[in-house]
Amino acid sequence: MGARYDTITFMSDCGHRDETVGVVHSIIRDIAPHASVVDLCHDIESYDVRAGSLMLARSVPYIAPGVVLASVDPHGSLERRSIAVEIGEGVGVLVGPDNGLLASAVAIVGGAGRCVELVDERFRLPSPGVLSPLRDVLAPAASHIASGIDMSDLGPVVDAASLLPSLVPVPRFENEQIVAEVLSVDPFGAVQLNVDETVIDHLGEILVLSFGESRRTVRRFATVSDIASGQVGLVSDAHGLLAVTAQQRSAAEDLGIDTGEEVIIAEAR
Amino acid sequence: MGARYDTITFMSDCGHRDETVGVVHSIIRDIAPHASVVDLCHDIESYDVRAGSLMLARSVPYIAPGVVLASVDPHGSLERRSIAVEIGEGVGVLVGPDNGLLASAVAIVGGAGRCVELVDERFRLPSPGVLSPLRDVLAPAASHIASGIDMSDLGPVVDAASLLPSLVPVPRFENEQIVAEVLSVDPFGAVQLNVDETVIDHLGEILVLSFGESRRTVRRFATVSDIASGQVGLVSDAHGLLAVTAQQRSAAEDLGIDTGEEVIIAEAR
Amino acid sequence: MGARYDTITFMSDCGHRDETVGVVHSIIRDIAPHASVVDLCHDIESYDVRAGSLMLARSVPYIAPGVVLASVDPHGSLERRSIAVEIGEGVGVLVGPDNGLLASAVAIVGGAGRCVELVDERFRLPSPGVLSPLRDVLAPAASHIASGIDMSDLGPVVDAASLLPSLVPVPRFENEQIVAEVLSVDPFGAVQLNVDETVIDHLGEILVLSFGESRRTVRRFATVSDIASGQVGLVSDAHGLLAVTAQQRSAAEDLGIDTGEEVIIAEAR
Repeated sequence: MGARYDTITFMSDCGHRDETVGVVHSIIRDIAPHASVVDLCHDIESYDVRAGSLMLARSVPYIAPGVVLASVDPHGSLERRSIAVEIGEGVGVLVGPDNGLLASAVAIVGGAGRCVELVDERFRLPSPGVLSPLRDVLAPAASHIASGIDMSDLGPVVDAASLLPSLVPVPRFENEQIVAEVLSVDPFGAVQLNVDETVIDHLGEILVLSFGESRRTVRRFATVSDIASGQVGLVSDAHGLLAVTAQQRSAAEDLGIDTGEEVIIAEAR
Repeated sequence: MGARYDTITFMSDCGHRDETVGVVHSIIRDIAPHASVVDLCHDIESYDVRAGSLMLARSVPYIAPGVVLASVDPHGSLERRSIAVEIGEGVGVLVGPDNGLLASAVAIVGGAGRCVELVDERFRLPSPGVLSPLRDVLAPAASHIASGIDMSDLGPVVDAASLLPSLVPVPRFENEQIVAEVLSVDPFGAVQLNVDETVIDHLGEILVLSFGESRRTVRRFATVSDIASGQVGLVSDAHGLLAVTAQQRSAAEDLGIDTGEEVIIAEAR
Repeated sequence: MGARYDTITFMSDCGHRDETVGVVHSIIRDIAPHASVVDLCHDIESYDVRAGSLMLARSVPYIAPGVVLASVDPHGSLERRSIAVEIGEGVGVLVGPDNGLLASAVAIVGGAGRCVELVDERFRLPSPGVLSPLRDVLAPAASHIASGIDMSDLGPVVDAASLLPSLVPVPRFENEQIVAEVLSVDPFGAVQLNVDETVIDHLGEILVLSFGESRRTVRRFATVSDIASGQVGLVSDAHGLLAVTAQQRSAAEDLGIDTGEEVIIAEAR
């Protein structure tokens, strides 16, 4: 049985403050020395399954074929099953907790193929203490799958319909307003909304954003460079979603807004 | 003379704010292009040799065979010898400063084999300014060893007994109390003590922790998910050590405690 | 057409808070699976082209032959051309925005060879939204060049003399004083000046530094370990530049000084 996948893409909420990410790399290096590891991101907010799910969904069009190892809320996931989900008729396998983290990405690539629950002790690492789901279950499973072990050897098949669905929000339409939500704030302070750019094409160029106690009138622009210095504007971002942004400074700080907040979009009168 | 080791595991206190870690990767890529580099962690607190020593000791059961390049307190280490220590009859070589950083890991894997001091100029890089121990001595030495240069070519043999020992603390037993210490706080806020879980098996399920001016009564639990929301509890962690932890929030913040503080554990009456 | 370069050295101001760096790694893995990626640094201050330029110049003596992918101020660079610059008669190719970021490094290695503007759509990625220069232009271009595509296929040749020059500062000499500038503060708090150590050899051992409203008298030392605990001193750093530093603590914090500030150096009377 030869190597099956030569890339493992790794995403977690472990951060870089301790050795967790490095130990996972060491485990992969030991079990699947042929595999290259691509670190997608490890600075997802601790326990923020929703943010991890969104990140994975945004990234999946770019991820190289192979295994994806995803872990967010590792202690909470003790309660959840550890699973592997085949996608794209075997082009890739997602390995992670069954807590909704993988669901959006699976949907984007056409839905789940085979799913198994990772319970076979032969493909886990023995723990010196309590079980660490990432270190003892998910990382060795991802490595063994990359090395050519068939998913079905890692545990019993589970019904894809039994997996926890994603909690990624969709915008609502009320009267002539759009009730949106801040999906994320990028490192440059751009405020990404859960609204596809085409959704507001019937509205004018000048819009009113209401959030918390605030109201802000913003204009739509083609690119961030069209926004005057000192102003914020609404653009379509690099993912095709609406974003409030500014030139060379943080629109999120200017507005005093953060991820998860509700934003009502209406046409200016 | 062919390549001898194909993995270099790299740990430091350099952080990611500047290019130091990247330059070391570049040097390895140049001298030992066949080697894969596993970054264990680079966010050890500056100068904290003790924390680095503990991290290396926790990680060593997982580290892939090969060379370990470890650097903490690089300027202080100007005063200390730069050394290479063979372990496991040649399964691996640890390269770092002789400041106690390597000692705990060496002890865990059965003690030191050959040790050399890295003084041969042929295997150092010329510096454009003052010597940078990591860039000019340790990184090239690790790369040359990975490439098949024998340790003994890098400098004179030194007696393993002359190396600085580790300063990792062990718990003391006084009357019926255990005088422990916080080894580390993980990124999720779990407070790891220097006490093996088996050590308190003769005590009851309810314990009193005294630290600073504070006293906290805590219960032992099998896993973190057994701890009620809003409470802290005592569990065995993933390394088999006692840890004060909480569900989805930081026990360290709740207790107001940090690495290195003394904690007295006693049975509740 | 075979692979041409097997190392891509990657530097940016993207940070690690989101998946941008990971997506670039994924793109490289897809287009140039044979290439190893060395991450030089991604924590350059957002938009700080000058800091990125300095970092690249400091690092270039260590960077392995191959492709360098550099991106700072990615939104601003929408306005600037995306370019590839050949150096060292084909030893390497620098890929980045034409905003001065590459200029100092190019000068250090002997100047630019062929330069092209990266406009050919065949070697860009289609964007789901607005163009992301790093993701859609620079990363795929670097990968294609590493894979053996000739630079000249990626777009029209541009005159090296038309590229934006670097803004890295040089010290001025006024009367018997040197008007210097803080180039950078390293993670250990050492304050690096834009002054080569040999420049002040004619001055005495005791110097006065004036900056902002402050004046500090400092002594020159051979190494940081010669500086008494609690004091700051002037040493030649690992790049051959003058630095104000201290033992095991931050000289920058002690002085209350930061990158970009002017420092006047004069002999003490």
